Amino acid sequence: MSDPDAGPRTRPGGRSARVRAALFEATLAELVENGYAALSISTVAARAGVHRTSVYRRWPDRDALLEAALASLTAEPVRPEDTGALETDLRRYAEGIITVLNGPAGTVLQALLSSDARSLPQADRLRQALLSSRRALSAQMLARAVQRGEIPATTVADDVVDLLVAPLYFRLLLTGEALDDALAARTARAAAAAARAGALTAQTD
Amino acid sequence: MSDPDAGPRTRPGGRSARVRAALFEATLAELVENGYAALSISTVAARAGVHRTSVYRRWPDRDALLEAALASLTAEPVRPEDTGALETDLRRYAEGIITVLNGPAGTVLQALLSSDARSLPQADRLRQALLSSRRALSAQMLARAVQRGEIPATTVADDVVDLLVAPLYFRLLLTGEALDDALAARTARAAAAAARAGALTAQTD
Repeated sequence: MSDPDAGPRTRPGGRSARVRAALFEATLAELVENGYAALSISTVAARAGVHRTSVYRRWPDRDALLEAALASLTAEPVRPEDTGALETDLRRYAEGIITVLNGPAGTVLQALLSSDARSLPQADRLRQALLSSRRALSAQMLARAVQRGEIPATTVADDVVDLLVAPLYFRLLLTGEALDDALAARTARAAAAAARAGALTAQTD
Repeated sequence: MSDPDAGPRTRPGGRSARVRAALFEATLAELVENGYAALSISTVAARAGVHRTSVYRRWPDRDALLEAALASLTAEPVRPEDTGALETDLRRYAEGIITVLNGPAGTVLQALLSSDARSLPQADRLRQALLSSRRALSAQMLARAVQRGEIPATTVADDVVDLLVAPLYFRLLLTGEALDDALAARTARAAAAAARAGALTAQTD
């Protein structure tokens, strides 16, 4: 690239990074408030207070900009901690996901999953990226619990994490009840108990 | 009412009931395919092969028709069976819900929750009706398990049922994975194990 300040390789923290962050925020806000059909580089640029040509220098069209804005939402996934016990590992992890879902990324995700924008290929890729990154990261928590002898070695890590996380999305997308630390504690307690009881091992049903 | 064949009091099975079923089906199909903005009594009547005036005789406007069509989706809720054990009770119940979610009602529900139609007050009432009817019915399963001494008396029935059902909606609305009997077996096994371990009792977190 001839322009070291353009495109996704830009170092974080500089003016260019701030412009990019503002553009991503404006893109997602426009998508949530006015929908994909109305999304345009002109509207986004105006909302972010950036000249259109600065946008076109980085992204050729609105789809490229939208893709980059959505990718930024999963750029910093929640990382499991090692607390020394499965239930507290799961609890911290659920608390981290709840923090994200209660923040701006959660608003965007909810809007994307609950509106006509859901059918966009970009929304589908975001959904897939979110799930695969979560499953890859959380497998480590379960491997540690197996090593400590807390749960059977045949425990299916994805099933434990789905059981932990599903009640969060159930509230976000269906019941509308609060996502809070009490929910994190309860769902972690339940998922850990089910795993310890051997209810989440690979079985023929 | 002067016309015994009109409105919601009509006996099931007659010609009027068939017309009503066809109108409900057409209403929901139009909503799913073309959205709320395009929904009109004319379009629905044409699709169902019914004259507009027959529709207006029963429902004053499209909103009343839509409300009735959506209410028909929860008119026959899944009823828990008494199999004599919590895990199999939960498993049968999850299988019943999966059958519904994999059928036409599931298509409508998914479309309602994942499109701009979600913001309609009718969609919101359907969501609430679905949840409250499920919670009322399923409390009986948990009460029986307490009576049998399978789970602690302080078990929170709603939490057990949420843990059972959340993974189904997680797949329906987020991962897109199959809703099958293996999932029903696994989620029932996990929810029953968590309940038996006392992980779903009322606690201060």
